[in-house]
Amino acid sequence: MLESLRAEVLEANLELVRRGLVIYTFGNASGVSREHALAVIKPSGVPYDRMTPADMVITDLDGRVVDGHLKPSTDVATHVALYKAFPSIGGVVHSHSRHATAWAQARRPIPCLGTTHADYFRGPVPVTRAMSSQEIEAAYEANTGEVIARHFAGGDPTEVPAVLVAGHGPFCWGPTAAEAAHNAVILEYVAEMAYYSVTLAEGAEELHPAHLDKHFLRKHGVSAYYGQK
Amino acid sequence: MLESLRAEVLEANLELVRRGLVIYTFGNASGVSREHALAVIKPSGVPYDRMTPADMVITDLDGRVVDGHLKPSTDVATHVALYKAFPSIGGVVHSHSRHATAWAQARRPIPCLGTTHADYFRGPVPVTRAMSSQEIEAAYEANTGEVIARHFAGGDPTEVPAVLVAGHGPFCWGPTAAEAAHNAVILEYVAEMAYYSVTLAEGAEELHPAHLDKHFLRKHGVSAYYGQK
Amino acid sequence: MLESLRAEVLEANLELVRRGLVIYTFGNASGVSREHALAVIKPSGVPYDRMTPADMVITDLDGRVVDGHLKPSTDVATHVALYKAFPSIGGVVHSHSRHATAWAQARRPIPCLGTTHADYFRGPVPVTRAMSSQEIEAAYEANTGEVIARHFAGGDPTEVPAVLVAGHGPFCWGPTAAEAAHNAVILEYVAEMAYYSVTLAEGAEELHPAHLDKHFLRKHGVSAYYGQK
Amino acid sequence: MLESLRAEVLEANLELVRRGLVIYTFGNASGVSREHALAVIKPSGVPYDRMTPADMVITDLDGRVVDGHLKPSTDVATHVALYKAFPSIGGVVHSHSRHATAWAQARRPIPCLGTTHADYFRGPVPVTRAMSSQEIEAAYEANTGEVIARHFAGGDPTEVPAVLVAGHGPFCWGPTAAEAAHNAVILEYVAEMAYYSVTLAEGAEELHPAHLDKHFLRKHGVSAYYGQK
Repeated sequence: MLESLRAEVLEANLELVRRGLVIYTFGNASGVSREHALAVIKPSGVPYDRMTPADMVITDLDGRVVDGHLKPSTDVATHVALYKAFPSIGGVVHSHSRHATAWAQARRPIPCLGTTHADYFRGPVPVTRAMSSQEIEAAYEANTGEVIARHFAGGDPTEVPAVLVAGHGPFCWGPTAAEAAHNAVILEYVAEMAYYSVTLAEGAEELHPAHLDKHFLRKHGVSAYYGQK
Repeated sequence: MLESLRAEVLEANLELVRRGLVIYTFGNASGVSREHALAVIKPSGVPYDRMTPADMVITDLDGRVVDGHLKPSTDVATHVALYKAFPSIGGVVHSHSRHATAWAQARRPIPCLGTTHADYFRGPVPVTRAMSSQEIEAAYEANTGEVIARHFAGGDPTEVPAVLVAGHGPFCWGPTAAEAAHNAVILEYVAEMAYYSVTLAEGAEELHPAHLDKHFLRKHGVSAYYGQK
Repeated sequence: MLESLRAEVLEANLELVRRGLVIYTFGNASGVSREHALAVIKPSGVPYDRMTPADMVITDLDGRVVDGHLKPSTDVATHVALYKAFPSIGGVVHSHSRHATAWAQARRPIPCLGTTHADYFRGPVPVTRAMSSQEIEAAYEANTGEVIARHFAGGDPTEVPAVLVAGHGPFCWGPTAAEAAHNAVILEYVAEMAYYSVTLAEGAEELHPAHLDKHFLRKHGVSAYYGQK
Repeated sequence: MLESLRAEVLEANLELVRRGLVIYTFGNASGVSREHALAVIKPSGVPYDRMTPADMVITDLDGRVVDGHLKPSTDVATHVALYKAFPSIGGVVHSHSRHATAWAQARRPIPCLGTTHADYFRGPVPVTRAMSSQEIEAAYEANTGEVIARHFAGGDPTEVPAVLVAGHGPFCWGPTAAEAAHNAVILEYVAEMAYYSVTLAEGAEELHPAHLDKHFLRKHGVSAYYGQK
């Protein structure tokens, strides 16, 4: 069932390991089949070096297991909440990557200070509001997704495909699991450089909107001219 | 004698090397057999790449060598003091890992700023009081254990399985040597992110107690639902 | 066509990968044949691990493709602008290396704080002025080159073979593509140490001009005595 | 001539590469034969991966080449000045390792904030005074050695086997080239942790003298009890 999506989701998870975003059993990547209304996600707490495509877990968009011999990531309810809230996305990644998590812990949005950021995120990477005790105590993971979804309500989640959950860490998305993982790696890179930048010059000037748009639109949308297409 | 514990203790020591927590002959991991009232610990000053299970040293819980052809870690007296003070633990690890040691040197407890921390440590990682000249001059290593033990007196050392010895570095523990090493790796990860967080936002808000408990209890105790059990 | 220059340019690009200056398809290195008035540059958006010398793109000094089956780097117009403005250079490298980019984002020149810097750059590494909306909206990449060229107008670009484009990142150059890549690696190293230095001691003293000249001239010019020549 | 010392000096140089203290042709390690009054040092500007023991250069204690087919490190005059000033040492290492150099550039001594430092250096690692234009313009490298030697005049250079040359970087020494390299690696480790410590807590308390002595003397001198001797 969903053979190629299982393989792609495994590969997205392994990309997080290779790029140093996760250690031990940290992190989780998933992909969605819109056609089947099913998500494929990493199992909970299984070491990466033993994981096979067959270990990926298939759930419906309410997070109920449909196929698989293992329990899904504890964060599955957040993933499916995002798939329901953002119909245009195909993959979700959550990590506790060092610098992005530090901004989430500092509860500061990552300002767009340069073109590296603008190439991927059309504006600051936001921080969610803190979750209430009630939201934490019951249906915590689903509520995490809700808080993210409400933050982007009315906006286009593909323009800034990442968010920092306050006191927690980043969630990223993209058209596929692979692209969500790619965005997670870039977010960590951008978060690291922004850290150096603001500790060098607190209140560093944000990139001019014309500059931001130029770089974002070199890579995205109908006028993109980066790459070989 | 204690074949499998020797192997496990060696492996815990090697995990510290693989994860970048120790260089040269830094650091030491041990395990205890409660049944035999014996500890197994790394030898002092021996390079990691030549170490075999047979090089591990067996001591009684007063730190006296019972078996082994090498001298035990100079910190053995701290390890056995912790085994005596904390009957529920099975492994102890000491390292001078970079960021955890920096917090110990800055004499600041590591605040619980996010869920990565809360997954492992149910509250701030404390710093011991400074040791007196008397405590340093005689029975220094045993007194280091004493100062740690007194810090946790009356509390449950398994809720926060780590401490920073002021001006020195971290000691961690766990149900086994492997889990103590795992906690030492996580502590370094958490210490690094907390460093970035407080230099980004001095006085960053600590995680809400409900959020802290939610994450700690997802992984520990009777209601844990992380992983495959 | 230009076989050996293609190979050298590929190698310069790969050096950026090996030294950790670029990830994914970030960065670009080029070389110029003054004899043929042609530049050789990396293709746009192609993964480094599949790149061969035949994938390098040959353009004229206005950036028009003369030979190659792929589109050149989107930054080609910046490269050729530098080749036209600086007749003595043979190679150009652009990266978003972490610390150099952070200084560009902080819009601070990198002060010459030590002899490591002075060995390669005879003075601070400057930051360009911000580009205007007009310069960004049309002929952006060519204008980036223009802004750099104007910054060095009347000076000798070989004395400080690097610049930080404000809100963007570093461009470096040298007599060859290999030396431009070498300078990019050193710039990142120097930018990292300067970051630590100014966060340790804001307003740290710049190196005395006699000390700066001594080190620069140990390695450059007619009185150089470093190395085996 | 001096076969085994050549091999040991090469090995000390390679240790700097393996531990990340040097890139390209940075850094230099040497050893001395007191019996022959000869020093063995790395050649200038030769890539590490091609270096063989036969490439090491033998000089007298005035830095004049006695044997070898290559030019010695440009810093040879500093090395021999230290061998003459400190009769008890057998090896010298110079690097531009990142954090130690940052302290040298910030012109701040590295305070002894913890036991990792105290295990190797019995007090702060000092910074030399700035060199005068005269000292820089003629016999620069010999004068660098002079400035270091004068700093330690009347003291015991083996108690703190390292110094930061202001605006330059660290020089370390030891009984052998291998031990000098070991000290250089530890210095970088200690410098990194001290950087984090003082940026976490400016004015962090220095280690109590009793604690400092305890750790230094666990590893050095007649009462040492670390290791297997």
